[in-house]
Amino acid sequence: MGIFKDKGVVYKPVSDVDLGPHSPDVYISPKVKAPRMAGLLVTIFAWFLESRIFGPILLYILKKDNLIHRLVSFADLEESPVFVPLHPDEDLEEQQIKCIESDLSPPEQVQKATECLQFSEYIVKNPKFSFYRWTIMDYSKAYTSGKITPQLVADQFVAAVRESSEPAFQMSFFIDYNIEDILKQATESTLRYERGQALSVLDGVPIAIKDEIDCLPYPTTGGTKWLHKARQCMDDACCVKRLRLCGALLVGKTNMHELGAGTSGINPHYGATRNPYDRTKVAGGSSSGSAAVVSSGLCPAALGVDGGGSVRMPAALCGVVGLKPTFGRVPHSGVIPLNWTVGMVGIVAGTVEDAFIVYAAISEQSRTHQPTPVSPKLHFPLLKSPNTVSNIKLAKSLEWFNDCTEDIKVCCSRAMDQLYMRYGWEIVEVTVPEIEVMRLAHYLTIGSECSTAIACHLEKLDMAELGGDARVALSVYGAFNSREYLNAQKIRNRQMQFHKNIFAKADVIVTPTTGVTAYTLYDDALKTGELDYINGAALVRYQISGNFLGLPAVTVPVGYDKLGLPIGLQFIGRPWSEATLIHIAFAMQALCISDYKKPQVFYDLLKQD
Amino acid sequence: MGIFKDKGVVYKPVSDVDLGPHSPDVYISPKVKAPRMAGLLVTIFAWFLESRIFGPILLYILKKDNLIHRLVSFADLEESPVFVPLHPDEDLEEQQIKCIESDLSPPEQVQKATECLQFSEYIVKNPKFSFYRWTIMDYSKAYTSGKITPQLVADQFVAAVRESSEPAFQMSFFIDYNIEDILKQATESTLRYERGQALSVLDGVPIAIKDEIDCLPYPTTGGTKWLHKARQCMDDACCVKRLRLCGALLVGKTNMHELGAGTSGINPHYGATRNPYDRTKVAGGSSSGSAAVVSSGLCPAALGVDGGGSVRMPAALCGVVGLKPTFGRVPHSGVIPLNWTVGMVGIVAGTVEDAFIVYAAISEQSRTHQPTPVSPKLHFPLLKSPNTVSNIKLAKSLEWFNDCTEDIKVCCSRAMDQLYMRYGWEIVEVTVPEIEVMRLAHYLTIGSECSTAIACHLEKLDMAELGGDARVALSVYGAFNSREYLNAQKIRNRQMQFHKNIFAKADVIVTPTTGVTAYTLYDDALKTGELDYINGAALVRYQISGNFLGLPAVTVPVGYDKLGLPIGLQFIGRPWSEATLIHIAFAMQALCISDYKKPQVFYDLLKQD
Repeated sequence: MGIFKDKGVVYKPVSDVDLGPHSPDVYISPKVKAPRMAGLLVTIFAWFLESRIFGPILLYILKKDNLIHRLVSFADLEESPVFVPLHPDEDLEEQQIKCIESDLSPPEQVQKATECLQFSEYIVKNPKFSFYRWTIMDYSKAYTSGKITPQLVADQFVAAVRESSEPAFQMSFFIDYNIEDILKQATESTLRYERGQALSVLDGVPIAIKDEIDCLPYPTTGGTKWLHKARQCMDDACCVKRLRLCGALLVGKTNMHELGAGTSGINPHYGATRNPYDRTKVAGGSSSGSAAVVSSGLCPAALGVDGGGSVRMPAALCGVVGLKPTFGRVPHSGVIPLNWTVGMVGIVAGTVEDAFIVYAAISEQSRTHQPTPVSPKLHFPLLKSPNTVSNIKLAKSLEWFNDCTEDIKVCCSRAMDQLYMRYGWEIVEVTVPEIEVMRLAHYLTIGSECSTAIACHLEKLDMAELGGDARVALSVYGAFNSREYLNAQKIRNRQMQFHKNIFAKADVIVTPTTGVTAYTLYDDALKTGELDYINGAALVRYQISGNFLGLPAVTVPVGYDKLGLPIGLQFIGRPWSEATLIHIAFAMQALCISDYKKPQVFYDLLKQD
Repeated sequence: MGIFKDKGVVYKPVSDVDLGPHSPDVYISPKVKAPRMAGLLVTIFAWFLESRIFGPILLYILKKDNLIHRLVSFADLEESPVFVPLHPDEDLEEQQIKCIESDLSPPEQVQKATECLQFSEYIVKNPKFSFYRWTIMDYSKAYTSGKITPQLVADQFVAAVRESSEPAFQMSFFIDYNIEDILKQATESTLRYERGQALSVLDGVPIAIKDEIDCLPYPTTGGTKWLHKARQCMDDACCVKRLRLCGALLVGKTNMHELGAGTSGINPHYGATRNPYDRTKVAGGSSSGSAAVVSSGLCPAALGVDGGGSVRMPAALCGVVGLKPTFGRVPHSGVIPLNWTVGMVGIVAGTVEDAFIVYAAISEQSRTHQPTPVSPKLHFPLLKSPNTVSNIKLAKSLEWFNDCTEDIKVCCSRAMDQLYMRYGWEIVEVTVPEIEVMRLAHYLTIGSECSTAIACHLEKLDMAELGGDARVALSVYGAFNSREYLNAQKIRNRQMQFHKNIFAKADVIVTPTTGVTAYTLYDDALKTGELDYINGAALVRYQISGNFLGLPAVTVPVGYDKLGLPIGLQFIGRPWSEATLIHIAFAMQALCISDYKKPQVFYDLLKQD
């Protein structure tokens, strides 16, 4: 049979794979063979892929060239498929945590979070710090003391967004923001503070929402020109409802890579989000706007959606914190269903503490995910001081860790050394095997699901309404057969077992967040998007287990490259171990925060200095 | 884009679908357009499908003609996919049950089952009965009283199987049976009875195992000539281990449709299993041998595997009981993984009581199916007398129910009337919507999974080693894309919701088990298999929800057609409601058992009359 002519890999049983540092299953950096394309070239390439004659041939060659055939399609795998990365509730041995009752409202959960935070040491602006972003607690204190009002902040916010959109900046932070709605919310919040009835520390605090998440009164575009017409936004998403109950000032819908189908954040319809640290560089994506607005000081926190690093990558590139909780922890209803088994809501914030507060607002427990109760008891970290948790073991997979630029390698290695020197946290050398296989399996999964999710809309659509790079992505996404999808789910099973075994040796896996820092945004990409698989592969290099295996992960800024562009370090945790992850990220941040640099484009909404 | 040129159906929200008797979403009998093929024609058709040139075109036409494009591939469905039919533990209000402790051994569970059975009324051979199959309890009593020994039974069994294989019969019951192994087991069992140390009522009772389930010392062929070479049988399957612990006399591996990929039971390599009621008719499949050996008196019970009615259909065609428990209730390890989300072990037995005893032996509770605990508390029915349960509500979907031969319709309707007259059980008229859609979605699912499961073996295989009909099936199975697979899982979600709503109105859904009785076995099919999609569609018509939604279901013989061929009535229950299903089946059997007819081919191993 013709279709079986390619030979597939025969995978070893999981138990035969050595996860130690000297494993023969050593990491091999994927050799991505694809030239950068932008402008007319992308459009022509898209046209070829969509053609009935050339499309199938081209797709066959692409799949073969990228090892999909050998590693996935024709692979011999003894595992059963695992379709959804649900994890059972485990009795984690976590240090310094607080168990949260299951019947608390979002404001009550936020209250519990603030009780866990001991702000004296790190949250108050420290004169030794070279640069500091205002935190949620800074807003809350300024509002409570009457030093400033949500109304004033809203006015300054609107002015700042206007300025950022001017020809000199063209930051393209937002797809939509409604001044009237923002001012109305700010007025109501101001009245609450006047009456001493603030709903929570989030009351009046500007929070932005990725335009993939439903938030009234806005349509939800998913970064497209048409999806909001096909799928109406009728209500707030569940996570947005929870923020609204806390009084958050919802300031608009942030820009994103079209359909979340790319990592650069270059959107041909709503503009390419620019990096606040250097306007000539990309912000990263797909939650480009959410990361950029936090980086530039417009909001202390924002929501994104992370299906393949889409929260953590732009957060790292923009020098802020990105947190992706365990799959199932944050309710997903009201998010455009672009996939069902890899994506979930994540948080971008200026500090670890703020990521924690927003996490407290939006996370749920004891929810039933049909047919399984997936969210076990919620634990919050007691963040007294950075060195409250001891004996943390950090797993490092050397060759994988080092497959990044020299600046990133040096910076991230130094950060890990500091963790050892300051807290005595040891590094456990491991091998995370089959990284490239997992990346392909994840790509095949998210692609198949995205293609399925929007197929019925595409039928009615003129493809010219889509950007060139999204058209290319959708052509590839639609080219997978059911066997490839099922084999990808078998690989998911393998990797869940590998990671379980690694987490028996260490508390977290540590990696750079990305293999490259923010790269150049070329003008020829602005109208068509660009195809840059080399930078794309380097961006997602460390992201996949967070999505494909549903593991929680957090990125913390730990330094800058020679050009002054931010570098993030990522911690990937056990299922449901967000409390420990936040502890670790908090401790990491404490070692770096005094050296944080101010972005080129920055707005100070509290204007206190 | 070319691939979107077919128009798909836009499905209504589940809540808008009327499940009442006068629903506009009325049942439409599928119009299957395909001529019967056998002999050389099948081989040529298979060759065309496997050709690189004609294959894709032919498959495109087949998918389009059979409405797969319109109803699944290009359908607009708002549901999320549900990949595995796992059901949460629910507090069922079941009558007359006994809760079983979770730490019992298989013999202890069997002991509990026998305590639930009050045999006086129905199990003792009743002189008024026209015909009666010996039960497990009959064997047990005969052994315990010393009237006969397992050794004698084993001798008679071997003689009977030999006779059934002779040219005059050619029943093709077994793929393999090892006389030495059978006699060894029988000797050990006989010794245990002599010492008064029988392991359970199953000790020494002949039980046959479908050749899809691992059982030492046999290879597991899956009905093929090659699979046992590619996948070695190293140990008993879990369910077989449990039977062995109970002392069961494991008498060999029953014949089956090749790879379970058909419903006739015609196997070109091991012979077509013939129907004991009429050797010129098919036995049904894929667990053809398991149903036929029970029907012909060789074993009181046998194990099968039911992925699309494969236990219930042959049971109905051979005039015996077939029970398929809830997905996840019986451990699946050691069954050839031909699919992962629809198939599971089921039981064929001569009586409802025997199906119950074997169910007690092989079913597990509190097992964890990664990552979910799927088997809730085990409940056994207290079978005191047929009228111990009251107020049972039977859901009937009229047009669907009546889409069968006139004889079946009359016989099954009469059986339901009797249930009302004798026990006062009321019929609730409902509409089970989108039956044909569910059938296609299930076909697409089991096909994709089977194709994936054996793809790596097929690479190395000469296709001529496969029967013609299996080759055709595998070609179609391999032709689905990932979007079709995912849309099928969305349809699974819809149907799980529909069925949940129907089970709010009624305890069980009642249907004929099959749309036709055993049909003619033509000689031209013996060497190649046959393609008979019209009879195939009629056979599986009522089977799909048991597999695709993981619901428990049981078929009970309720009469015969004009040719004297058996007719089964099926009860489909709520998840985990096996106890109630067994109660209902027991009550149904009580109304019919006195009229059961003796098969044309029948062996009396206890020789007591």
